[in-house]
Amino acid sequence: MIPLWADNARRKADINNYPRRGSVKAEDGMFLKNCWYLAAWADELQPGAMLARQIAGEHVLFMRGEDDGVSALADLCPHRFVPLSMGRYEEGRVTCAYHGLRFDGHGKCIHNPHGPISAALSVRSYPFVERHAALWLWLGEAELADPALITDLTFIDETAPEARVKGRLHSQADYRVMVDNIMDLTHADYLHASTLGGGINTIAKADVEQDGGAITITWTAEDEVVPPMMRGFTGHADGVGDFLNRIAWHAPSIMVQDVNVGSTGSLKSGRWNQTARGCHVMTPETETSTHYFFMNCNSSTKAHPETAPMVRAALVDAFSNEDAPISIAQTQRIAGRDFWSLRPAMLPSDKGAVLVRRALDRMIADEAQRLVAA
Amino acid sequence: MIPLWADNARRKADINNYPRRGSVKAEDGMFLKNCWYLAAWADELQPGAMLARQIAGEHVLFMRGEDDGVSALADLCPHRFVPLSMGRYEEGRVTCAYHGLRFDGHGKCIHNPHGPISAALSVRSYPFVERHAALWLWLGEAELADPALITDLTFIDETAPEARVKGRLHSQADYRVMVDNIMDLTHADYLHASTLGGGINTIAKADVEQDGGAITITWTAEDEVVPPMMRGFTGHADGVGDFLNRIAWHAPSIMVQDVNVGSTGSLKSGRWNQTARGCHVMTPETETSTHYFFMNCNSSTKAHPETAPMVRAALVDAFSNEDAPISIAQTQRIAGRDFWSLRPAMLPSDKGAVLVRRALDRMIADEAQRLVAA
Amino acid sequence: MIPLWADNARRKADINNYPRRGSVKAEDGMFLKNCWYLAAWADELQPGAMLARQIAGEHVLFMRGEDDGVSALADLCPHRFVPLSMGRYEEGRVTCAYHGLRFDGHGKCIHNPHGPISAALSVRSYPFVERHAALWLWLGEAELADPALITDLTFIDETAPEARVKGRLHSQADYRVMVDNIMDLTHADYLHASTLGGGINTIAKADVEQDGGAITITWTAEDEVVPPMMRGFTGHADGVGDFLNRIAWHAPSIMVQDVNVGSTGSLKSGRWNQTARGCHVMTPETETSTHYFFMNCNSSTKAHPETAPMVRAALVDAFSNEDAPISIAQTQRIAGRDFWSLRPAMLPSDKGAVLVRRALDRMIADEAQRLVAA
Repeated sequence: MIPLWADNARRKADINNYPRRGSVKAEDGMFLKNCWYLAAWADELQPGAMLARQIAGEHVLFMRGEDDGVSALADLCPHRFVPLSMGRYEEGRVTCAYHGLRFDGHGKCIHNPHGPISAALSVRSYPFVERHAALWLWLGEAELADPALITDLTFIDETAPEARVKGRLHSQADYRVMVDNIMDLTHADYLHASTLGGGINTIAKADVEQDGGAITITWTAEDEVVPPMMRGFTGHADGVGDFLNRIAWHAPSIMVQDVNVGSTGSLKSGRWNQTARGCHVMTPETETSTHYFFMNCNSSTKAHPETAPMVRAALVDAFSNEDAPISIAQTQRIAGRDFWSLRPAMLPSDKGAVLVRRALDRMIADEAQRLVAA
Repeated sequence: MIPLWADNARRKADINNYPRRGSVKAEDGMFLKNCWYLAAWADELQPGAMLARQIAGEHVLFMRGEDDGVSALADLCPHRFVPLSMGRYEEGRVTCAYHGLRFDGHGKCIHNPHGPISAALSVRSYPFVERHAALWLWLGEAELADPALITDLTFIDETAPEARVKGRLHSQADYRVMVDNIMDLTHADYLHASTLGGGINTIAKADVEQDGGAITITWTAEDEVVPPMMRGFTGHADGVGDFLNRIAWHAPSIMVQDVNVGSTGSLKSGRWNQTARGCHVMTPETETSTHYFFMNCNSSTKAHPETAPMVRAALVDAFSNEDAPISIAQTQRIAGRDFWSLRPAMLPSDKGAVLVRRALDRMIADEAQRLVAA
Repeated sequence: MIPLWADNARRKADINNYPRRGSVKAEDGMFLKNCWYLAAWADELQPGAMLARQIAGEHVLFMRGEDDGVSALADLCPHRFVPLSMGRYEEGRVTCAYHGLRFDGHGKCIHNPHGPISAALSVRSYPFVERHAALWLWLGEAELADPALITDLTFIDETAPEARVKGRLHSQADYRVMVDNIMDLTHADYLHASTLGGGINTIAKADVEQDGGAITITWTAEDEVVPPMMRGFTGHADGVGDFLNRIAWHAPSIMVQDVNVGSTGSLKSGRWNQTARGCHVMTPETETSTHYFFMNCNSSTKAHPETAPMVRAALVDAFSNEDAPISIAQTQRIAGRDFWSLRPAMLPSDKGAVLVRRALDRMIADEAQRLVAA
């Protein structure tokens, strides 16, 4: 008699051997695992519905019960590797389409029509938090998943939903190239010349600070022509005024942005005609594709929520038709090679982006070493 | 003078070094070679015609003369590697489109417009048998190609062609995943609930036997509700009756099926209202694609051949729209990795499928060792 | 403080480490670098325009100023690897779309809006010559780029533009397979039977000569039926006459062709009714794709330039619909493996093609050794 179940004991012992399960080899070493990923906007997952999404190479299934409870499981039946997302979701439980195994929101098998429920019959469950109108996912070691580590996006909660300018775009680009793009906004003067550029981003004084995990770059300019889209906020017909633009990066790829515009003197006084806080979150899907989550909450759309769709359209146009082709072309030219091995020429304006790349590289390397040692 | 033909002697010596010729590296170790593959239904190859098909990674050209003689050659001119199927077939001979080399059905060069016919100018010929309305191909060592090893499908010959429910489907799935699917028919209760399922496959008693090369699994149930499509055969309006479903696997991926349905008591008496014998043959095309040949010969279509197209349509619907998406998704999730390394959870219902996978793995490993030793 | 510019010194030192920059690993060892590639017909690049083209794996940007000056740069900004071809070309300078870096035709950075212009901010410039109505590119060591090494195609200059039968075709085929195709024109009898074939290419006497770098094969036939398209030039209704067809290969993949047709006795007298000189240039794009540049200058179209489009159409038809499918199929069957490792059977008619393959293999191997030694 061949012991059919011999593998089960070994399987159970390894169930927490998380980096291998549900991930693919090629992606190892490219993504941070012990961190919170913004996986979806909360309203992408409706009550009683499932959402299947690949995050940093892992196939994840999000489910929201009718009672609003959310869970995140590996999107993979442990029996024959069918995506659970092909099955049926009812009353907080998902039933595999293939052989009827049923799992609860913790990944525990609660129905096996074919025999006893063994410990091997469990699906990996991911630490998961709903906060700031978003769903946050932890891919790494569960015991390290501290919700206090989630990037503070309280500005979202403080903005009425109808005043939020929000979206998710998908791009066939390396997420790190897309982080570079935000960490060096001087590109707006060339790539978005008629909307977000105009020259001021290059003229502005740039200050870079590293504080704990965050890396912040602040561009300031006084008595200069601000970007075309913001000229109305200076109070001058010629668009001359003060300007402050700040990006604060948080690992792995979450960037909070403040843009303030006002008449000349605003920077010194700290009183602005227009303030905006938003975020750009580049959540990797695979090695060469990214979910780009953006949010913009500004004083104008707060005052006039009916203008939010128009602002959203302008941002989507810039991201999709100006940024995305560049990021995709960069990803194709880098072609999977190590970025540094290609010896990019350095400009002073790269300081923020370079510090971020180095910080992220170091975190990923540290994590890999930790896992090898463990 | 450079000896242009220096390679020819070496080439001749290696002409029987079959695993390399016409195959691609990536596929080594995944397919059994010393076995009969069902390569086509016989009527796919008309008199005077050619049929090019990839079988287990090898490009094969089937030709049928006007006199009905069939041959199978490597679909590759030995001169400059043009597929012979791009050429012309006349009077049992194929002429390469590129330089006019002509080969007979044994792969022997019978015309070279450019010089003498050397031994190097021969195309590999595969052992080949037409039997049971099918074309059978042997990819391995010719001296081992014993037609007695062809799986017995006499039931086909015993059924009038118009009563046969027959087809070939192509799927972007690993053939082993498709074998698993047939070896565990409990899936019908979940995936084909309204036609072939309904619960009885899971309720049924399953007996697995290993007899020589064959692995047989038999599901039996007495006085139970049979699958929806078969309820009319119980003689009871509520569909309650006896049910026997048997799958017999033969290497590499040929499964003969018997399905019997009758009123309660049929299992004990051995007298059934409806009997069906068929086969499911999963012939690998590449590592991730499969030719699925199916045949169903049952007492109803024998009595009423005009119903055969309707039965065929129902089977094609189940295979294409219910099974295939699952098999394809499994193949994508396995992503070329070794199935066992992923540690599938085991259910008692997997016994047949697991025994088959282990038998096949062992045969492939034994064959690889044999070749290394030789 | 992290030294952001630490890499720049090292980058500068390596700026002439050409094989790595802008090329991709997979292509190493497959292409000759120290040679002139025909990269485009001159009229493909209009004054004030750019042309982006991949040559032997390298992305190259050709630019022609309003003053007709042409330059060739790596199509890659050294800053963040955006293709320069996505930017703007004005007054002989290209401005990167992403951050506004501007480069002149020598690849020298002439404008950096973000700081000083360091030596690292330069784009590789390729040696480049416009000659014989074509643009010639040198991918290797600049100091070896001697224009005297460009294959002599003076026959183009001697033909009025309107009498030239010229084109560029793109094919998903290995360039070496496409060279083989021209070096053995016996294939015309089978693949182009009704136009360029008819049997004479196989019947003809073939003489192969190796003279310095060139390898020449000459087919001659006397008092035979010439190819269908040329029968009118024999002066006999039955198309019988003399025929001379010569191909001279020059590294890496430039073949000059002479085709002469006349009445019987022409070969001895050297007086022909119809003479044609042309070239077939197979410039590799990637490992599996090729730019095929062809030119045909013959006595008929010189006399009647209005017939040039018709001759062109006939050639394009033969190349695209007869040659290309064969070359593509060969490339797919070779599947990236070494040609010789597949042990092609040799025919006497392969002599020219085999000598060329061996010469090219040797040149590539010598170049690789030279680079390792350097």
